Amino acid sequence: MGLILLRYGEVALKGRNRHIWLRRLRRNIRACLERTGLEGTVSSAGQRIYVDTPTPEAALEPLRRVFGLVSLSPVTVTALDLEAITAEALHHAEEAGLDPSRSFRIQARRANKAFPLNSPQINQHVGAAMVRRFGASVDLSRDVDITIGIEITDRAMLFHRIIPAFGGLPLGVEGRVVALISGGIDSPVAAWLLMKRGCSVIPVHLSQSETETRKALDNIEQLRRYSYGWELRPSVLDHGALLDPVIQGLQRLGEERWTCVLCKRAILRAACDIAYQYRAQAVVMGDSLGQVASQSLPNMEVISYGMPKPILRPLIGMDKTEIIDLAREIGTFDISTRDSAPCTFLPESPITRGTIQQLARLEIALAREKEES
Amino acid sequence: MGLILLRYGEVALKGRNRHIWLRRLRRNIRACLERTGLEGTVSSAGQRIYVDTPTPEAALEPLRRVFGLVSLSPVTVTALDLEAITAEALHHAEEAGLDPSRSFRIQARRANKAFPLNSPQINQHVGAAMVRRFGASVDLSRDVDITIGIEITDRAMLFHRIIPAFGGLPLGVEGRVVALISGGIDSPVAAWLLMKRGCSVIPVHLSQSETETRKALDNIEQLRRYSYGWELRPSVLDHGALLDPVIQGLQRLGEERWTCVLCKRAILRAACDIAYQYRAQAVVMGDSLGQVASQSLPNMEVISYGMPKPILRPLIGMDKTEIIDLAREIGTFDISTRDSAPCTFLPESPITRGTIQQLARLEIALAREKEES
Repeated sequence: MGLILLRYGEVALKGRNRHIWLRRLRRNIRACLERTGLEGTVSSAGQRIYVDTPTPEAALEPLRRVFGLVSLSPVTVTALDLEAITAEALHHAEEAGLDPSRSFRIQARRANKAFPLNSPQINQHVGAAMVRRFGASVDLSRDVDITIGIEITDRAMLFHRIIPAFGGLPLGVEGRVVALISGGIDSPVAAWLLMKRGCSVIPVHLSQSETETRKALDNIEQLRRYSYGWELRPSVLDHGALLDPVIQGLQRLGEERWTCVLCKRAILRAACDIAYQYRAQAVVMGDSLGQVASQSLPNMEVISYGMPKPILRPLIGMDKTEIIDLAREIGTFDISTRDSAPCTFLPESPITRGTIQQLARLEIALAREKEES
Repeated sequence: MGLILLRYGEVALKGRNRHIWLRRLRRNIRACLERTGLEGTVSSAGQRIYVDTPTPEAALEPLRRVFGLVSLSPVTVTALDLEAITAEALHHAEEAGLDPSRSFRIQARRANKAFPLNSPQINQHVGAAMVRRFGASVDLSRDVDITIGIEITDRAMLFHRIIPAFGGLPLGVEGRVVALISGGIDSPVAAWLLMKRGCSVIPVHLSQSETETRKALDNIEQLRRYSYGWELRPSVLDHGALLDPVIQGLQRLGEERWTCVLCKRAILRAACDIAYQYRAQAVVMGDSLGQVASQSLPNMEVISYGMPKPILRPLIGMDKTEIIDLAREIGTFDISTRDSAPCTFLPESPITRGTIQQLARLEIALAREKEES
């Protein structure tokens, strides 16, 4: 069996909710192991969670996708004996490739105060042995080449690898949101960010073409790799049923330039409706500013006017380069940038600065037009 | 005189808006020089902007706070002559401290196709001279120690420093937003992110105590260092006038636990009102998820219900550690973390999962209660 030490971040800070959040985090870790077909037991003590598994190397990659964790380390265990600990530390240093050209530091953390040496004393003893054996130099800065960690609890745990995880909050502790997912780059990133902040996501896609629906569903598959403890069940809305009346009405009125705005309103209303059904408290969109002419503040105002659920736009303050970097990191970029099937209803010059008054008049005209037709 | 070369990012991509955006960017650069009391002229050619100033070193720091720019380089100019360019490159290498232990690369960019050598040929010629003089090794990777840049236009411009700027869009091209600014860490960062995305900000602060108002105003001073081309004019709302009726009404009804939610609604309504006055299209808040019990999704739903302007929450997908890092970077963290004066109306157990139905009933009861009192 191999042991993995998992560190959590913000979770540790939450006074009142600490136990609920930790329980949820452990549950999500178990769901992660189960979903990826790995055996293992999950326990926690002090500020740490432990996964004991026959396949630690295989477990690292999925475990780092459990939100709420900030980093992971495969550890080896020794008895609470200074010489055993020192020997094990030398073994780790060898595995990490320590040599005279590289610097190292020892970072002991004594949670068990019954151990006779305190942390600086452990650092000093083990560090001296390291210098003798490898001729390497001690460096206390954060830029050191190799860090050997030693955690002293009822046993000693040693590690030399710290694998960063994504941080955030345990998925599920912050409630549910409906996330609109298209075939593009932005929307899966937006959904992922809310998942990272503890939300269970209900993905909604408006089908427009097989190509784009395939991309959206493939991206939801990628998001599923982060959604431990919550099943992502996409709702695919039929384009025709939802949007044909709007598009045809606008054509008859000669107001095609409003197509994008009114389609988005129809989709948002459908998303709010789904939010009520599934007891979700908000709708997430991939809106950012200035990317295309229709993603303007006036359009955002007109599009969200009167929507009954809050609209969350986690990308609103991000540059396109930052969004693309995140998309690559989470694994959706290559899917989003496959051949695309652009919307066939895109008007030649979509409105970029509509007003609420114009919108209200147009929606009245559309309703009247529909009654008469 | 000294010349600074300024690179812009997303701006370059915008087909239709390119000229408007570039004009705005140049205007903001001029405003930056003027505001910081620096002389200089601004021009642009090709994909570059140039600032010619007697004090280039002093101009670098303020100029990197002009949104839309991605990086800056102080450059020296030579004639379009290969030997003059090579000599100048050696001079830059010396200034950059090139020696046999460090690697370098030459990155030529020939915008002027009349120059007889193409970019790889320039790189090769200058690189060879560099190896002969310094005994340093060429390295084509991005991790190289020293990069010497050579831009060939109607003259040759050389540089060895690339100072990163913040990216984003030229402030002002995306319209106006009202930003709520408290004395805390989050709200100035939220406002800054929308400024970075091209919005002119109208700061609104609700005065609660002198301490917190001082912090908010000092933070707005920090934001002013990024707001070139737009004057930040804070509106300070009087706590008593706006919130006393709400707070007293809730006390009489014995519903103090709703205080935070109804205060936020009153502040948001005031912010929407200011947005209408100043033709702003949205309200920006520093909301993030899970920080305090009252920053929950159900509360966000109840707080924003029925607000006439879109509420933008750029921090909604960020961890506290990320928000703090940004606050440090932009210069607001130390102000936000000064001694604080907590709100005196904070109820013992604020509501964390209010519903729209409860809200509606309460607002009716408050209105009735007010009529009767």
